[in-house]
Amino acid sequence: MPAVQTGQRLLESATEAFAAKGFHGTTTRDIAAAAGVTPGAVYVHHRSKEELLYSISKLGHERTLELVRACASTSSNPVEQIRTMVRDFVEWQSSNRTKSAVVNFELAALSDEHRAEVLDIRRAVDAEFRTVVDRGREQGMFNVPDTSLAVFALLSLCIDVARWYRSDGRLSAAAIGEHHSSMALRMLGAAA
Amino acid sequence: MPAVQTGQRLLESATEAFAAKGFHGTTTRDIAAAAGVTPGAVYVHHRSKEELLYSISKLGHERTLELVRACASTSSNPVEQIRTMVRDFVEWQSSNRTKSAVVNFELAALSDEHRAEVLDIRRAVDAEFRTVVDRGREQGMFNVPDTSLAVFALLSLCIDVARWYRSDGRLSAAAIGEHHSSMALRMLGAAA
Repeated sequence: MPAVQTGQRLLESATEAFAAKGFHGTTTRDIAAAAGVTPGAVYVHHRSKEELLYSISKLGHERTLELVRACASTSSNPVEQIRTMVRDFVEWQSSNRTKSAVVNFELAALSDEHRAEVLDIRRAVDAEFRTVVDRGREQGMFNVPDTSLAVFALLSLCIDVARWYRSDGRLSAAAIGEHHSSMALRMLGAAA
Repeated sequence: MPAVQTGQRLLESATEAFAAKGFHGTTTRDIAAAAGVTPGAVYVHHRSKEELLYSISKLGHERTLELVRACASTSSNPVEQIRTMVRDFVEWQSSNRTKSAVVNFELAALSDEHRAEVLDIRRAVDAEFRTVVDRGREQGMFNVPDTSLAVFALLSLCIDVARWYRSDGRLSAAAIGEHHSSMALRMLGAAA
């Protein structure tokens, strides 16, 4: 197997294992076995189990930041920006539920240095939302008492879906994205 | 130390440890040390580490169900019911952030039998919200396309606060409860 492919498979098997048993409940042996390599091969590609979590967490947060920025850039109208930001974020979190759960719920297991780096990306995501909500308030399109609290509420809709979504459920990731984006605009008091 | 008090202290130290290191990253030795007892004493009070998590999870869910039912019983008006249900649930989750995080984010670590029992209580909480939302829709007070999805959105506001709340932050648990309850009513399309 080419080295790049092995590295990628290890990331995938680590994601599955962390989601199922938590970071601390997973051994590098579990990760190696699921990827079909020897435990020693894990260390060829990743320095440690924590380094694997860091890669998953960093990639996941970078992907979220790109997605949110891409959505924000599709319009200069705050209502349309929030509509696409929440819709695509929710859809992505649902479609990639296992990865999203690890990215959002295993932050405490990162080293202090790695967690600080990931939290910087997280703050950049929050800032994208805050900028749009603030501009919508200035333009009289949104009516909320506190931008930060409104953004917490928006992000709860987006992130918590990774806790409850089941791919065999009644609703598609896209349908939940559409629904939650309309709920998000209601929360912001956007004109119907 | 009286036996009841020791059992309670073990629940508290287990909650702290599970929140900090996850269920699988915690040993009964850690829990015993934090409670100031010998590892053997843990087994006098609780059959296993999983039994401790089960007790924490069951008590937490029972407390939530009681709280939600008590709020629902204070009025027959669905708007007032949702207002108090979301407000008090959010405030409780924030004020008891460590416990709430363990209760909501460590379900996967329970045995199948214990998880099924806890999920039954969880479904009873969901049902309380669904009943009120359905009645509000029937009475023309709420305007949502799908009760289940609306309830998922309400519960995301309530539960996700246990992920992000910090007691040293700018806002009190009560202020966040008030804020999120008004956001909840907006999502339901309740008349202002």
